[in-house]
Amino acid sequence: METIESRLAGLGLVLPQSPQPLASYVPYVRWNRLVMIAGQLPMREGRLVVQGRVPDEIDLDTAASAARQCVLNALAILKNAVEGDWERVERILRVAVYVRSRDDFTEQPRVANGASELLVTLFGAAGHHARVTLGVNALPLGSPVELEMMVALLS
Amino acid sequence: METIESRLAGLGLVLPQSPQPLASYVPYVRWNRLVMIAGQLPMREGRLVVQGRVPDEIDLDTAASAARQCVLNALAILKNAVEGDWERVERILRVAVYVRSRDDFTEQPRVANGASELLVTLFGAAGHHARVTLGVNALPLGSPVELEMMVALLS
Amino acid sequence: METIESRLAGLGLVLPQSPQPLASYVPYVRWNRLVMIAGQLPMREGRLVVQGRVPDEIDLDTAASAARQCVLNALAILKNAVEGDWERVERILRVAVYVRSRDDFTEQPRVANGASELLVTLFGAAGHHARVTLGVNALPLGSPVELEMMVALLS
Repeated sequence: METIESRLAGLGLVLPQSPQPLASYVPYVRWNRLVMIAGQLPMREGRLVVQGRVPDEIDLDTAASAARQCVLNALAILKNAVEGDWERVERILRVAVYVRSRDDFTEQPRVANGASELLVTLFGAAGHHARVTLGVNALPLGSPVELEMMVALLS
Repeated sequence: METIESRLAGLGLVLPQSPQPLASYVPYVRWNRLVMIAGQLPMREGRLVVQGRVPDEIDLDTAASAARQCVLNALAILKNAVEGDWERVERILRVAVYVRSRDDFTEQPRVANGASELLVTLFGAAGHHARVTLGVNALPLGSPVELEMMVALLS
Repeated sequence: METIESRLAGLGLVLPQSPQPLASYVPYVRWNRLVMIAGQLPMREGRLVVQGRVPDEIDLDTAASAARQCVLNALAILKNAVEGDWERVERILRVAVYVRSRDDFTEQPRVANGASELLVTLFGAAGHHARVTLGVNALPLGSPVELEMMVALLS
């Protein structure tokens, strides 16, 4: 998987600098071959790319794109965890996608697909993950989406 | 635990076909002896058994019964993960139950008990799990409940 | 880490009795060197220390203090899991903090910092964890915060 950056480039995407946590915790914990990545917001260059609730304040496509930005931030952290060697990624185990939703919004899975499809495009079979997708009424900074990831390494 | 199906039958319950995920992810990931099961909705034969918010649109007992249906779907997936051999289930480690709640609803644990009690009935001590139970304002398809499960295998 | 209690005492805090779960599940599951602690509410002596939604019913500082109480309850459980020997705690892996939020509340991380900072004060580097922080509209018993923790043991 040394070609993650080139695959991203082929999609017109760039891996950001590893985001800093908003508070007193760490971007990831590695324990043996498990990596737990902290909840990611759709930040770019230190700011949310979009803010608001789905679907009345931002639409489904914008939210799906925000979910992709969360993945990029998670991958920037994962790259640190594997010291730049993508070959060490064995499997994306679990992805949780939290979508800030109006009470009657029911299409959270379509928002989360923005994240899931990108992971499969980038990692192939190793990117197939178990997923949980929820609606919530509020998120940090007013973000429309937050994403959490657990990853298994080969070594 | 070869008698899970017979215990279910004794409760008047039937293990469904393993449900398909709603989107671009997989029903479960197995990594070594850990199984992560994707978030399950109370689907039966391709449809939600019930829809709505607790307690004004659906009542507590109906929601608890929906939580049980989520467990059945999770178990149908788990059966695939253990290739039909229930003896390989060492422990249900963690169950998360998300209940679509009116803002003032506070009895999410009673909804989740529908799931927890079924697991203990079926698996005995191996079914005793750590649990997190939350209220949320929205869920995929307008489901009243979603359930996530992490399981340890003996081999 | 035999001094966790003395560090708590230095902060004017006392480890409570291990709380009982509200329902048909267990306070923690230990599997090999992993401990999953069930979702904790800010209970003290069998009652919530505070109830309500942030920030209109209770303010941010009160909520942060409730998050600390959740940590105390989680640690009381963890102490049982390590049979009183804090040296066996290798790392706090993941902390999830759920904050009952008005729809427009966006400072959940400041609430969660009450929990995170206490863990780092008590455990040092071993207390640095990956964190996910969400807003939700409802929690069991009307609690303002719920906290979940996954811990790795040395043995």
